[in-house]
Amino acid sequence: MPHTNKKAVVLLSGGLDSTTLLAMAHRDGFATYCLSFDYGQRHNAELAAAKRVAQAMGAAEHRIATIDLRAFGGSALTDASIEVPTDGVQSGEIPVTYVPARNTIMLSYALAWAEVLGAHDIFIGVNAVDYSGYPDCRPEYISAYEMMANLATRAGVEGEELKIRTPLIHLSKADIVKAGIALGVDYGLTVSCYQADLEGRACGVCDACRLRRAGFEAAGVADPTRYR
Amino acid sequence: MPHTNKKAVVLLSGGLDSTTLLAMAHRDGFATYCLSFDYGQRHNAELAAAKRVAQAMGAAEHRIATIDLRAFGGSALTDASIEVPTDGVQSGEIPVTYVPARNTIMLSYALAWAEVLGAHDIFIGVNAVDYSGYPDCRPEYISAYEMMANLATRAGVEGEELKIRTPLIHLSKADIVKAGIALGVDYGLTVSCYQADLEGRACGVCDACRLRRAGFEAAGVADPTRYR
Repeated sequence: MPHTNKKAVVLLSGGLDSTTLLAMAHRDGFATYCLSFDYGQRHNAELAAAKRVAQAMGAAEHRIATIDLRAFGGSALTDASIEVPTDGVQSGEIPVTYVPARNTIMLSYALAWAEVLGAHDIFIGVNAVDYSGYPDCRPEYISAYEMMANLATRAGVEGEELKIRTPLIHLSKADIVKAGIALGVDYGLTVSCYQADLEGRACGVCDACRLRRAGFEAAGVADPTRYR
Repeated sequence: MPHTNKKAVVLLSGGLDSTTLLAMAHRDGFATYCLSFDYGQRHNAELAAAKRVAQAMGAAEHRIATIDLRAFGGSALTDASIEVPTDGVQSGEIPVTYVPARNTIMLSYALAWAEVLGAHDIFIGVNAVDYSGYPDCRPEYISAYEMMANLATRAGVEGEELKIRTPLIHLSKADIVKAGIALGVDYGLTVSCYQADLEGRACGVCDACRLRRAGFEAAGVADPTRYR
């Protein structure tokens, strides 16, 4: 566990990317306040993974906020009537697994917690390489969010700048895996699959599984994922 | 009920300001999708008022989203250990009734719903005159939010601009009341008090009550508020 008074809120899904992100926040000397969301996702094994990861990696605190994105529908990840695609990632399109305004909502909860904690750093594991089809994973979106956040809060008013930190944004999946391995991450704790079963075993065919598997391959690292 | 296909999401608390806002959205020809929040506010009579208002004014739909801001604490409106001030509005300070990131979180839910509805307009009743101490009621905050929102969503990617509409932002409370009366608003339906009782009767001494009462007086309109 890092010894520091510098607090950061870390958005932690329990997947490969956000777990690497948490390791990076610790490397950078932050005491981490991990925030996960129960947003009616099909792959609830994620939350169990987030708990394991936060505990194993020595987070200062871990909270799970319940948000009801199902009420609005519109994504294969929260709407049971839309099928999770298993036929590979299409480039240049917004995927049906895109959840409307998800990152905006999650960052906004992180912003509220950061303000109460007196934290000036929020870590989010967005990636513009693999998720180029998601509008809210782009660097220009993150910059705009940061600018807004600095106007939204006491911190901004009092002149202490709030930073949205996205150390994964330009990394390939293989580079994320390599960085995590170098920081001692145990990827066996993590779950990335969009439709993992209750024990956290992955389907192996959804977009998230394909990207993850290819990442381990390209990094030359044995894939610790449990497939069903 | 307005006859139109132009949809707008309207953030509706059930208070004086947001009820006037809803009347303005109808005046502007929008079919309105009203969104209220159960955020653990002490004054839950607000939500009953929001339901009455949405129904009486012919909203196309009204949804209440539950968000757990109590988990983070930090405001007299959600944290029972902080007292609601009753000794008048202090200028130049951020009041203890400020809820961290509240407008940011609420706008983000509105953004998600707007995206699913295909709506390009979000109405929020922020006011920079009476709530000058709240960072997230300032015009520069709203502009920054709008810029971010246009980068966050499919609409932005597809070139259809999303607008955050704040017709109350520069109006005095008296001008808001006058505008609402001209549009036929029945303010007897609304509840503004920070600590209304279960029947929606107002305390008369909190900041919200003081501002509201002064507004009716300055507008020369009989105050229909039920005080306890």
